[in-house]
Amino acid sequence: MQNYESVQGGICAAAGFKAAGVHCGIRPNKTKKDLMMVLSDVNCSAAAVYTQNKVKGAPLTLTRKNIADGYARGILCNSGNANTCAPNGLELAQKCAQLAADATSLAPSDFVIASTGVIGQEIPIEPFEAGIPELVKNLSSQGSADAGMAIMTTDTRLKEFAVQFDIGSRKCHVGGVCKGSGMININMATTLIFVTTDVAITPEMLQKAIDRVVPLTLNQVCIDGDTSTNDMAVVLASGLANNAEITSEDAAYDVFCGALQDIMCKMSRSLAGDGEGATKLLDCTVSGATDDATARAIAKSVISSSLFKSAMFGADANWGRVLCAVGYTPGDFPVDNISLTLKSSAGSIKVCEASAHYAFSEDDAAHVLFQDEIEVLIDMGTGSGMGKAWGCDLTYDYVKINGDYRT
Amino acid sequence: MQNYESVQGGICAAAGFKAAGVHCGIRPNKTKKDLMMVLSDVNCSAAAVYTQNKVKGAPLTLTRKNIADGYARGILCNSGNANTCAPNGLELAQKCAQLAADATSLAPSDFVIASTGVIGQEIPIEPFEAGIPELVKNLSSQGSADAGMAIMTTDTRLKEFAVQFDIGSRKCHVGGVCKGSGMININMATTLIFVTTDVAITPEMLQKAIDRVVPLTLNQVCIDGDTSTNDMAVVLASGLANNAEITSEDAAYDVFCGALQDIMCKMSRSLAGDGEGATKLLDCTVSGATDDATARAIAKSVISSSLFKSAMFGADANWGRVLCAVGYTPGDFPVDNISLTLKSSAGSIKVCEASAHYAFSEDDAAHVLFQDEIEVLIDMGTGSGMGKAWGCDLTYDYVKINGDYRT
Repeated sequence: MQNYESVQGGICAAAGFKAAGVHCGIRPNKTKKDLMMVLSDVNCSAAAVYTQNKVKGAPLTLTRKNIADGYARGILCNSGNANTCAPNGLELAQKCAQLAADATSLAPSDFVIASTGVIGQEIPIEPFEAGIPELVKNLSSQGSADAGMAIMTTDTRLKEFAVQFDIGSRKCHVGGVCKGSGMININMATTLIFVTTDVAITPEMLQKAIDRVVPLTLNQVCIDGDTSTNDMAVVLASGLANNAEITSEDAAYDVFCGALQDIMCKMSRSLAGDGEGATKLLDCTVSGATDDATARAIAKSVISSSLFKSAMFGADANWGRVLCAVGYTPGDFPVDNISLTLKSSAGSIKVCEASAHYAFSEDDAAHVLFQDEIEVLIDMGTGSGMGKAWGCDLTYDYVKINGDYRT
Repeated sequence: MQNYESVQGGICAAAGFKAAGVHCGIRPNKTKKDLMMVLSDVNCSAAAVYTQNKVKGAPLTLTRKNIADGYARGILCNSGNANTCAPNGLELAQKCAQLAADATSLAPSDFVIASTGVIGQEIPIEPFEAGIPELVKNLSSQGSADAGMAIMTTDTRLKEFAVQFDIGSRKCHVGGVCKGSGMININMATTLIFVTTDVAITPEMLQKAIDRVVPLTLNQVCIDGDTSTNDMAVVLASGLANNAEITSEDAAYDVFCGALQDIMCKMSRSLAGDGEGATKLLDCTVSGATDDATARAIAKSVISSSLFKSAMFGADANWGRVLCAVGYTPGDFPVDNISLTLKSSAGSIKVCEASAHYAFSEDDAAHVLFQDEIEVLIDMGTGSGMGKAWGCDLTYDYVKINGDYRT
C-alpha cells in the first residue's frame, strides 16, 4: 500500500514550480490579492477538465487552445471578475497571455489562463499590465500561499495541499491550490483547481489520470447545485522527479493516480467544508449499493438536498429527508433495505434500519450533529457498490452572501 | 377562444362534489385541521400522476390500486404525518379506506388515499376512527376551504381555485385544492393536487388530459429541488355537467384541457409564491428557444438556481446567474444570443442583450425587484420554442423553517 505523506509547499511542493500572488487592482480592496501566477522551470505535460456549462468564460476557450498540444509552462489567474459574458472577453484573455509571455520571455500559448468572480462585467487591461511584471518578479518556491490567496473569492480559508510519495527510487510530489465556495456543482470539474507534480508523465496519460480521478472526487462535491461558467481543473507535470516517464497504465501510473486522488479528495473536502455560509462539512459514504456509480449518485443526491442541508444546519436528525433524496436519485434500484448512521467526533448513532425508523434518542442525535464535520453513512443493503460525496449545510449566511454578492 | 371564468367553490365548484375538513388529532395543535374528505354523489372517472421518487408513501400504493379500474368516489387525505417509511404503513392506509367505506356505505376501493407530513413516524389509527365519521357528517358543497385547510402543512395561504366554461350548451366546472410548500421539485406531479370536474369524460381521456397538462404546469414548479415521496395529482370527473361524454381528442377535449391547464397553472403559481420562506414569486418565461421542451427546461433550471433565488431575495439584478443557469440546462443549444428582461408591477428593465451586459441603472433594477412577483423574461434568440416555470426566492426563513421542522 503506497503511502502518501502530507507535506508543506502546496502548488510549489513539486520540483520546478514557483508561484506568486499580488494585488493588481481588479478588486477594489487593496489588502486582497487578485492575481496569481504559477511557473515551471521546464515545459510541462498539461491536462485539464472544464465546466460542462454551455455558457463559458473566455479564459476557458483560450486555455483549451493553448494546451491542445499537451504542454504548458505556467498558469495565470485573476479573481474579482470572471471575464464571462463580458465585452471583448477573448481579446482580454489573449492580451493577458501576451503580457505573461512578455514578462517571462515565453510564448502566449505556454500559459493556462483562468478567471473567477462576477459574470458579465467588463474587465480592464490596466491592472494586468502593472500586475503581471510584479508577479514575475515575486515568483518563489515559497509562493503557494500567496497564489492560493489570490484566487479566493468568498472562500474563508486558504486551500493548499501537497503529498510526497515514491515511484521506484524517486521522491515525487503532487500539490495544488483550489478555490470555492459558491456556484459549485461539480460535473467534469468546475471551480478552480490547479495542481502541479514533478512526476514524468506524458500528456495523454496525465489526461487519463485526471479523467479517472475527477469523477471520484471533484465531481462529487456540491455546494449549491449551480454549475459555474468558468471553472477548470488543470494539472501540470514538470517531470523533474526523474522517474521513468509514465507512458501506460502501469504500476507507477496507479501510484500517481493514488496521489492525485489523495490531493483531489482533500480539495473536495475543503471546498465542501468552506462552502458559502457553511457551518458544517457533510461527508457522505454510500455502501451496499448495486454498483459504484449508483453509490456515487446516491451520495451526491443526499448532500445536494436543500432540505437535508437545512436539517443539518439545525442539528436535526431528520432521516426521512435522507431517504427522500436517496429515492429521487436517478436510476432504478431497491430502496427497501436502507440503513443510516450519523457520525461525528461526538459519537455515532443509527437512525434508520430496513428503510424504517430505528429507535434513537433525539438528544444523543443532536449531540452528534452539533459538530463541524458530520459523516452520513448510508448502507443500501443490496450490493457491494461504494461511493462518496461532500457537501455542507444550508445556512442563513448562504442566503445573506448570495442575496447581496455584488454590493 | 374559450373563456375560463374564475368562480368560487374550489373543489366543490363542480356539480356533485361535497367536501369537509376536521381536526382529528394527528396534529397536536387543536386549531389546525388535519383530515379532509371529498366525496362525489356519483361514481367518477379518476386519473392521477404520482411522484417519481422511488421511496413512496404507502397511500400512493393503495391509491394506485384503488383507481386501477379508472373510477373513484372520493378522496381521504390527512396532514401531519406522511405515512412513509412508517411501520405498518400500507395496513394503516387500508384501514383508513375501510373506515371511509364504513362511514359512507361505499367500498374501500372507491377512495383515493393520501397523506402529507413528516416521514418515518408511526401513525396511529385512533384519530381516523374518530375523524372519518365526523368528516362524513360535515360534508357540504361549501366545504372546499375546510378541506383545503386540512391539507396545509407549512403553507401560509389556502390554495383553492375553480373555473367555469362551456362545452356545447353545457356549463362545466373544474376546481380544486392543493398544498405546498417545501420538498417540491415536481416531476410528473408531486405535492398534493386534488381536482374535481363535472365534465363527462372517460377515465382514459382523463388520464390523457392530465398527462398533457402536468408537464406544462405542475412539473414546472420548483421550491427546493427535493422531489417528495408522497405526492400526487388526482382528478375526479363526475359527469354531472351532462355534456356528451368526451371519448376522443376532439374539440370538447381541448376545451377541457384548457380548463385543467388554467387551474393547474394557477395552482403552480400559488405553490411557488407560497414556497417555504418565500417573499417573492418568480414567474419565468422563456421564448425564442429551439423548441418548447428546451424552453421549459431552461425556465425550470433558472427558477431552480439557489444563487439566482438568493439574488432575487436581495433584489439584486445579478443577471450573470441567470445566464449561468441557462448554460447548465441539459441539452445542446446556442447560448450566444440571449436577452433578459426583469419585470414587475413597478416596471420593466432589460439587463442583458446578445448574452452580454446591457447598460441599466442598478437603482431602477432594484425598484423593479422590490416587488412580490417578478417576471423573468428570457429570449434565447434562436427559435420559436416557448415555456414557463414558477419558483420563489431563497430566504433566511426557508433555512429557519427547515432547520427546525420537526420540533
